[in-house]
Amino acid sequence: MAEVVHMIDNEVFLAFSTYATIVILKMMLMSPMTSYLRLTKKVFANLEDTTLVTSTEDKKKMVRVDPDVERVRRCHQNDLENIIPFVLIGLLYTLTGPDLSIALLHFRAFVCSRLFHTVSYVLALPQPSRALSWMVGMAVTISMAYRVLTTAVYL
Amino acid sequence: MAEVVHMIDNEVFLAFSTYATIVILKMMLMSPMTSYLRLTKKVFANLEDTTLVTSTEDKKKMVRVDPDVERVRRCHQNDLENIIPFVLIGLLYTLTGPDLSIALLHFRAFVCSRLFHTVSYVLALPQPSRALSWMVGMAVTISMAYRVLTTAVYL
Amino acid sequence: MAEVVHMIDNEVFLAFSTYATIVILKMMLMSPMTSYLRLTKKVFANLEDTTLVTSTEDKKKMVRVDPDVERVRRCHQNDLENIIPFVLIGLLYTLTGPDLSIALLHFRAFVCSRLFHTVSYVLALPQPSRALSWMVGMAVTISMAYRVLTTAVYL
Repeated sequence: MAEVVHMIDNEVFLAFSTYATIVILKMMLMSPMTSYLRLTKKVFANLEDTTLVTSTEDKKKMVRVDPDVERVRRCHQNDLENIIPFVLIGLLYTLTGPDLSIALLHFRAFVCSRLFHTVSYVLALPQPSRALSWMVGMAVTISMAYRVLTTAVYL
Repeated sequence: MAEVVHMIDNEVFLAFSTYATIVILKMMLMSPMTSYLRLTKKVFANLEDTTLVTSTEDKKKMVRVDPDVERVRRCHQNDLENIIPFVLIGLLYTLTGPDLSIALLHFRAFVCSRLFHTVSYVLALPQPSRALSWMVGMAVTISMAYRVLTTAVYL
Repeated sequence: MAEVVHMIDNEVFLAFSTYATIVILKMMLMSPMTSYLRLTKKVFANLEDTTLVTSTEDKKKMVRVDPDVERVRRCHQNDLENIIPFVLIGLLYTLTGPDLSIALLHFRAFVCSRLFHTVSYVLALPQPSRALSWMVGMAVTISMAYRVLTTAVYL
C-alpha cells in the first residue's frame, strides 16, 4: 500500500477528497429532503408508499405531483448533472499535479456555488441568483477539464 | 505501471472494484428493462421510436406514459442517486486504507441492499421493505464518507 | 507524487483521461442546450425563471412542458445513465492494465457512439439509428466490466 499512502499524503488529493465528499453528501441530502416532503405533504409516486402514512382512506389521491416536491427533485437532478462531472473530472485534474492554491480555489468555488445553488433553488430566490451559481459551478468543471486536456492528451 | 499493479494487488481495492462493478452493472440493467417494457407494451417517449414496432397505425397513441414503465424509470433514477455516490465515495474510502473485513462489510451490505431495493421497487412489495433497503444503502455511504472525512481533512 | 507522475505517464491512463473528459464535457453540453431552448422558446420549469426573459406579462403560461426541451432533457438523462457508468468502470478497467490498442478501441467506440447518439436523439433521426448507437455504448461498458471481473475478483 506504499503508493496509496503516498497518494493520501498528497495535499491536492486530500483537498479533493474532502471537498468531493462534502459536495456528494450535500447531493445525497436531497433524497431525505424529498422523503420528508412526501411524508409531511402526503404526496407519493407509488401507491404502496401511501401505507407509510395511512392504512385507510383515499390512497389513490395521494399518488400525485406536488410543486414543492418537484422543486426539490429538480434541484437533485441538477446536482446529479453538475456534481458528478465535477467529481469525475476533479479526480483526473488532481492527478495532473496542479498547484495546491489553484486546486483549492477550484474546489472551494465549486462547493460554495453548489451550496448557494441549492439554497436559491429550494427557497426559489429571485433569478439570476440560481443561474449565476450554476454558471460558477460549470466554469470550475470546464476549467479543470481544460487543464486535464492541455496537460496530457492521448487520442 | 508498478504502482497500478501494486494497487490492483491491494485486497480492499480488489473488493471495491468487484462490488462497484457488480452494482454498476445492476444499475445499467434498468435501461434494457425499460426498453423491453416499452417495446412489449408499445409505450414510447419519442414519436420516431414507434417505427421499431409498427409502420402503419396510430403512432401518436403510442407516445404516452405508462405506470409500469415509469416505475422502472423511478427505480433507475433512485439507482443513479444512490449507487453513483457509493462508487465515488467508496473509491476515496478504499484509499484511506480501511481494514479488509470492515470494508467488505460495507460493500456487501450496500450491494445486497440495492439488489433488494430493486426487487421491492419493481415488484411493488409492501412498504417499508423498499424504504428500509434504501436506508441501509444510505447508511453505508454515509459511514464511508465519515471515515474519509475523519481520516484526513484538508479544507 | 512519484506514483501520480507514474500513473500519468501510463499511456492507457492518459487515453482514458482524455476520452473520459471529452465524453463528460459532451454530457455537460446538454445543460446549456436546455437553457438555450428554455430562454428562446420561453418554456420554464420554475416561476422565478420567467423573470430572465420578461418582467410583465403572462408568467404562469411560461411554466409549461415543451416537446423540444423534453427531448434534450431525455438525451441528457440517457447520457447520465450511460456515460457515468462508462467513466467509473473505465477507470477500474484502466487499472487492470489492458493492452493500449484494445483499450483505445473501447474508448473510441464509446465516444463515437455517444456523439452519434446525441445527434440522432436531438435531430430525431429515424430509428434504429439511436437504438444502435446506444447498444454500442452499452456493449463497450459491459466488455470493460467483464475484463474487470475476470482479471481479479474478490467477493
